[in-house]
Amino acid sequence: MLNPVTPDFEDSLRALLPAAAFKNDTTPYLSEPRGRWEGQGVVVAPASTEEVASVVKACAAARIGIVPYSGGTGLVGGQLLQEGVRPVVLSLERMNRIREVYPSENVLVCDAGVILADVQKAAEDVGRLFPLSLASEGSARIGGLLGTNAGGVNVLRYGNARALCLGLEVVRADGSIWHGLTRLRKDNTGYDLRNLMIGAEGTLGVITGAALKLAPRPVGVGAAMMAVPSPAAALELLALAGALIGEGVSAFEIMHRQGFDFLTEVGPGVKQPFAEVPEWCVLIDVGLSAGISPEKALEDLFASAFESGLVTDGVIAQNHAQRDALWYIRENIPEANRRIGSVSSHDISLPLSAIPQFIVEGEKALAEVGAFRINCFGHLGDGNLHYNVFPMPGRSRADYEAERPQVKRVVHDLVHAMAGSVSAEHGIGRLKVKDLETYGDPVKLDMLRAIKEALDPLGIMNPGAVLRQRQTPPAEV
Amino acid sequence: MLNPVTPDFEDSLRALLPAAAFKNDTTPYLSEPRGRWEGQGVVVAPASTEEVASVVKACAAARIGIVPYSGGTGLVGGQLLQEGVRPVVLSLERMNRIREVYPSENVLVCDAGVILADVQKAAEDVGRLFPLSLASEGSARIGGLLGTNAGGVNVLRYGNARALCLGLEVVRADGSIWHGLTRLRKDNTGYDLRNLMIGAEGTLGVITGAALKLAPRPVGVGAAMMAVPSPAAALELLALAGALIGEGVSAFEIMHRQGFDFLTEVGPGVKQPFAEVPEWCVLIDVGLSAGISPEKALEDLFASAFESGLVTDGVIAQNHAQRDALWYIRENIPEANRRIGSVSSHDISLPLSAIPQFIVEGEKALAEVGAFRINCFGHLGDGNLHYNVFPMPGRSRADYEAERPQVKRVVHDLVHAMAGSVSAEHGIGRLKVKDLETYGDPVKLDMLRAIKEALDPLGIMNPGAVLRQRQTPPAEV
Repeated sequence: MLNPVTPDFEDSLRALLPAAAFKNDTTPYLSEPRGRWEGQGVVVAPASTEEVASVVKACAAARIGIVPYSGGTGLVGGQLLQEGVRPVVLSLERMNRIREVYPSENVLVCDAGVILADVQKAAEDVGRLFPLSLASEGSARIGGLLGTNAGGVNVLRYGNARALCLGLEVVRADGSIWHGLTRLRKDNTGYDLRNLMIGAEGTLGVITGAALKLAPRPVGVGAAMMAVPSPAAALELLALAGALIGEGVSAFEIMHRQGFDFLTEVGPGVKQPFAEVPEWCVLIDVGLSAGISPEKALEDLFASAFESGLVTDGVIAQNHAQRDALWYIRENIPEANRRIGSVSSHDISLPLSAIPQFIVEGEKALAEVGAFRINCFGHLGDGNLHYNVFPMPGRSRADYEAERPQVKRVVHDLVHAMAGSVSAEHGIGRLKVKDLETYGDPVKLDMLRAIKEALDPLGIMNPGAVLRQRQTPPAEV
Repeated sequence: MLNPVTPDFEDSLRALLPAAAFKNDTTPYLSEPRGRWEGQGVVVAPASTEEVASVVKACAAARIGIVPYSGGTGLVGGQLLQEGVRPVVLSLERMNRIREVYPSENVLVCDAGVILADVQKAAEDVGRLFPLSLASEGSARIGGLLGTNAGGVNVLRYGNARALCLGLEVVRADGSIWHGLTRLRKDNTGYDLRNLMIGAEGTLGVITGAALKLAPRPVGVGAAMMAVPSPAAALELLALAGALIGEGVSAFEIMHRQGFDFLTEVGPGVKQPFAEVPEWCVLIDVGLSAGISPEKALEDLFASAFESGLVTDGVIAQNHAQRDALWYIRENIPEANRRIGSVSSHDISLPLSAIPQFIVEGEKALAEVGAFRINCFGHLGDGNLHYNVFPMPGRSRADYEAERPQVKRVVHDLVHAMAGSVSAEHGIGRLKVKDLETYGDPVKLDMLRAIKEALDPLGIMNPGAVLRQRQTPPAEV
């Protein structure tokens, strides 16, 4: 079992770290974006890898839990410990240096506490692109983005956070430092520790630095919104876009009319792209190399798709402002959702070809639970849907407390039955620990536990996240 | 310690598996491509995942080592056990079914024993591309390609084997089966076991099946060979190609004049592309989407590069036959090397910007050891050089037995000092276990050992590969 942080232990941390590492107001570190849980613990913000190592060593010696805290934007409670013994909350915010940029290598090396938007900006300053892009990019930090293997809108083309990382610096659970900050594109010397740490949600160590992959900036960018007769047609359009435009397709997002209706109902206000809002539409973003115009490529795609009956209407952005206006719609659907207040929201993924059937069967299964409004949208190119279930007009989230567990179970059971994932990009955190136990392959779970015990034998790293906390100690301290 | 295979144990295997699983001639399984080592052991070839599991369970119960055997094309001795107690050699050759192809998802699911060329063919049959491509593709099998995280010529664009795999089926060291054959593009539910198994060289389990990522076939393909004044210019040309052609650049290979000289000296005969062979040249391969011709893109690249002094001469293939002729040169350099016979060959990678300095300093450092011919070529786009050291004319490999260890040390020390890797794509196998111990970060090595003990506590999976075999048992059977 872990020990709680005591006043004596706090004093010992104050002896280890400068005063600047301690926070007077710890409120922001103990809450989360949707206000669903409250954390606890003493907050420390070390300014260097060595300081992180000294905190971890002290915690290991006293067998005290550590909750790594990055931007605090996670949606599954991985960044706070509501129940259990009082931990150290280890904020990365003061480790916010971009250490070095290598434009000729398309590499940027930075501290784990750098904010995503600052990495994007540093890449742009040298004429490169850091393609990771998501709603919270103004506050999410690199350590958390890697710790959770974050996704976002450009995964289709550039991959998730995992695919954008070449090397890591990590403080292990015993306080030792793994110097794995390689800039190499290829290195087959031993097991893939980098990818093991990425997505481990701070349960195997604290990421303190990263070597990130940059990309050339596309010569021209463009976007179009196209109305499709069905999700199946959207998938055929995706395949056609791949055949015609190849890797030039940066994003392929699907939206249901419900999202547009919510925007009309509660805002933010958007400029409607279609005369009549279609049942389903997709937002296609492209970034092309020299010699071909994005507008032309999208026109050719539209013409070919129209001929095959895959699209019924479309708007192709003719300039950056029009492209931004199309993206503004997609990017504000989550805000409209927040204003409506979901009964239950699900970050799911499915084999691409199973999506049309899932949408039909999900609606049927939920109708048996009760009357709901479903807003299904997201990263169709990745098979990743944000499948959110909302109250009927005039009712609120609070009216559905009784139904919520059933709604969640119905959706997750269907996803699981169709070989999907109940956490496509948000991770497990503490919210989905039981889901992982319910839906995870038992042999997989056994391997996860074996790895956790091997790399964090005391169980101090983000206790209770990803895997249930062990109730009996594996060994004496 | 492990136990040797006994006649009694062989009998028990014969009771478990049908007669077809046993080989009369085991010679091919106990040798390797360059004839440097000889293996030992009883060879079994199970035909299903369940049969593999039953063999592994029997070995675990008797504490007998297992050497997974795929295509046998590895260059670092991972596929055979020369020293140590007699193991079971587990060949995947009878698990050679393509289980299912999902063209609309760009996914192919197959047994681990399928030959790479057969996967390429199955993808082509449905109008898709499986981009993994390397010299041994006619005999290398998927399990080994994933087990070693194989590279090849298209890594620049499509990534290595790791980047082309969505899911795995693995028989663990205790004989249990991990059913991880997902076709999902995104799944953040727990640690990244897939990437842990990929590149583990069979030391953590036996890969028995894989879900592979296919890609759209480019609409047009093309190639050019361009003479560059220096490796530094080649790197600038690479960046320029990225800026103009983006992900359309499929391969970017560098070749030194020495390779052309070897081809002239020992064959195979090739059609010389240049009037005068340049000191350095690059082979650029592109695959483009609709609306732009590969020849035009390469011409534009050449014109822009010529203006900046990055290229001095060039040949752009005007048809498939010319493209094949350019690739024929690159693909036959390894054969010419084999005919000459290297003193020592090195599969190294470096941070891209360090390559020009490495080439200068490598030559200097070797000159202090003796007189050699250096053939430096390879995947410049990935920072991966095949840096091979050859006898002077009239002498042979055998004349340099005394110098070989020093040559190897000089090259590897320099690579390590410049933050490179001593095994970019070939892996550790048994040949480079000491190199990993010498050059690997001690904290990393400690983590590798902890993971090995956690997932293979008896040490039966490919004993002595990647990590030195433990001399004392961690626990009783």
